[in-house]
Amino acid sequence: MQSHAYYSFEIERLAKILKHMRARVVLIQLPDGLKPHSVYLKRELSNKLPGIRVFFSGKGTYGPCDIAFDEAITVGADVIVHYGHPPIRYAKSEIPIIYMPAKIKVEVDPQVVIDEIAKRRYKRIGLSAIIQYVDLLDVVYNKLKDIGIEVYVGRGANAYRGVVLGCDYSAAISINSYVDAHIIIASGKFHGLGLKIATGKDVLIYDPLRNEVMSIEREYRRRLSLKLKQLIDAEKATLFAVIICKKAGQFNMMMALKAMQLLRESNREYISIIVDEITPASLENFTYVDAFINTCCPRIAIDDIDRFNKPILSLYDLRTILKGEVNQYSLRL
Amino acid sequence: MQSHAYYSFEIERLAKILKHMRARVVLIQLPDGLKPHSVYLKRELSNKLPGIRVFFSGKGTYGPCDIAFDEAITVGADVIVHYGHPPIRYAKSEIPIIYMPAKIKVEVDPQVVIDEIAKRRYKRIGLSAIIQYVDLLDVVYNKLKDIGIEVYVGRGANAYRGVVLGCDYSAAISINSYVDAHIIIASGKFHGLGLKIATGKDVLIYDPLRNEVMSIEREYRRRLSLKLKQLIDAEKATLFAVIICKKAGQFNMMMALKAMQLLRESNREYISIIVDEITPASLENFTYVDAFINTCCPRIAIDDIDRFNKPILSLYDLRTILKGEVNQYSLRL
Repeated sequence: MQSHAYYSFEIERLAKILKHMRARVVLIQLPDGLKPHSVYLKRELSNKLPGIRVFFSGKGTYGPCDIAFDEAITVGADVIVHYGHPPIRYAKSEIPIIYMPAKIKVEVDPQVVIDEIAKRRYKRIGLSAIIQYVDLLDVVYNKLKDIGIEVYVGRGANAYRGVVLGCDYSAAISINSYVDAHIIIASGKFHGLGLKIATGKDVLIYDPLRNEVMSIEREYRRRLSLKLKQLIDAEKATLFAVIICKKAGQFNMMMALKAMQLLRESNREYISIIVDEITPASLENFTYVDAFINTCCPRIAIDDIDRFNKPILSLYDLRTILKGEVNQYSLRL
Repeated sequence: MQSHAYYSFEIERLAKILKHMRARVVLIQLPDGLKPHSVYLKRELSNKLPGIRVFFSGKGTYGPCDIAFDEAITVGADVIVHYGHPPIRYAKSEIPIIYMPAKIKVEVDPQVVIDEIAKRRYKRIGLSAIIQYVDLLDVVYNKLKDIGIEVYVGRGANAYRGVVLGCDYSAAISINSYVDAHIIIASGKFHGLGLKIATGKDVLIYDPLRNEVMSIEREYRRRLSLKLKQLIDAEKATLFAVIICKKAGQFNMMMALKAMQLLRESNREYISIIVDEITPASLENFTYVDAFINTCCPRIAIDDIDRFNKPILSLYDLRTILKGEVNQYSLRL
C-alpha cells in the first residue's frame, strides 16, 4: 500500500530561505528513518546553492527537544535545518533553526475510519495528526463531517493546528472534554499511546500508508502492566540514580533537584548521572544502581521500559513508590 | 590471578585538590569499566567534602581526546575529574580538568617476561606501559637490567615517562631505533596492537593481572587482512561519506577537508556527516553510502573494522585506494 507515498523535502522552499539568510554552512538533522535521503538532499541543495557547505548530523533526533546545537557549533554551521518535527520555543538558540515538516504525500480514502466509528457508535470525534500527515487532517475532517459526525481539531503548544508530538498532546487535550474518542493520523503505536495516556479517552490510530485503523487499548494495558512490575521492583531499591539529559530541550535540572530532594527526605542513597541519551548501554555499567529516575524525555520511562533490565522511573513514579501508592497508579506523561 | 589487584582512586588527593580549587560542582568522567565504582566515589567524596555536588558522565570515555565538556557545561560543573587517562593539551578548556590515573595496584614477578625474552634472544628491549600500570615500569625495568638486558624507556607527548595511549606511541617511537622488540605492560590487545603498528617492531604484551606474555603478531595480521578486504571493497565505492567527530580532541576539520578535496579531485560523490562517536548504529541509516572516511579516532578504522558492514577508511586508506596502491599497503595509525 506504500507505492504512492513519498516524502516532500521542499528543497525549493528550503533553498530560498537559505539563500535569503545567506547561509554558507548548513547542518541538516534527519530522524533516522529519513537518513537514507541524505544523499538526495545534498545533491539537490548543492545544485541549487553551489556555494553552500552541507553537513549531516549522524545522531538520531527524537523531536524539537533534540537539536544538534553542539554539532552545528563544531562544524561552524550558521543555520540548522531540522526535518520531521514542528518547532517549539527554546530559551536560547544562538544558531537559527529552520524546521521542515517532511510531509508524507499519500492519497487516502478514510472509509476504514468511518466504518470503525460506526461500529463503535462514536458521535463526537477528536482528530489529530503527526506533523508528517498534517495535510491529511482536512481530508479526514471533511469526510467525517460529510456523514454527520461531530469532529473537533484542537490547537496546542506547537505551531500546527491539530498536530501532536510524542510528549505534547495539548492540541488533543484542548478538545478532550467534547469528544467520545480520539482519532490520530499516524504510523506506528507511539503517538497513539501517548494520546491515550494524555487524554484517558478511547484512541484509534489511522495509518494512511497501510489504510488501517487500530485501537491502542491493548498496547496501553501492556505498558501499564510492565510499569507496575517495575514500580514493585523499585520499591525494594536501596541505591538510585537520577539521570539528567544534556539535550537542550530535555535538560531539566529543577526536576532532577526535586528527585534528589525526595530521595534525601526518604533516606535513599543516590548518585547523579548526566547523559546525552538514556540507553541500556549508557546505564548498564552503573552496576550497583537499583533504579534510575528519568528526568529526560518523558516517553523513555514508558516506551523503552522493556529495553532495560532495571526500573526506569519518572518523578511521578518515584513519588508513587515513596508514598506507597502503587495500588492507585495509572500511566502519566 | 586478580585477587590482589585493585584500583587506586586517590580520593584523599582528589579531595585536597578540589578543596584548594573551591570546587562546588564536579563532573566525574569514568571509562565504562570503572563506572561500577561511581557509588564508592560519590560516597567517599561526599564524606570528605560535604558541600560538593557530584555528577557522573553517563558516556564512555576513550581517552583524553574525549572530555565531557558539554555535559560539564550543562550541569554547571566548575571542575571536570577525568579518570583513567594521562593529560594531553587542548586548544581550549574553559573548565579545568583534573586527570586522575586510576592506577591498578598489583604485585608482580615478571619472570615470564624474562623467559620469553630469553626464548626469543632479544638483547635490547623497549619498555612501555599504559597509565594504569605506570608504577610497574620501574619494577620490570630493574628486573630486566639485573639480568643484563639493555632496556630503554622513552619519553613522548604525554606527561608520563614510558606511557602510551591508544593513538600516541611517541614514548616508544623515541627509542624505537635502539631496540630489537618492545614490551608493553597492558591488559588486552588494544595497546599492543597500536604499538606494533606505530613501531613495526616485534611487540610482546605483558599482562600483570594474568601474569602472561603474549605476542601481538597474529592479531596484527588478522587486522591487516580485514583492512585489505575493506580497501578492495572500497575501490568499487561510488558514494563516500566523510565523518567528522564532535569530541574536542578528535575534531579534525583539516583532515575532513583534505578527504573532501581528494574525493572531488577524483570525481567521487560524497556527503559529510558529523557524529559524536562512530558506531554501527550511527552509520547504518546512511544506506546509500558505500564507504566511510574516518577523521575521528584513528583506532576506529583498525580495531572496530569487523563491527561495520561497510568499509571505514582513514585518510591514508583513502589515498591508497585513490592511487591504486592497495598492493603496497601496510597498517598505519
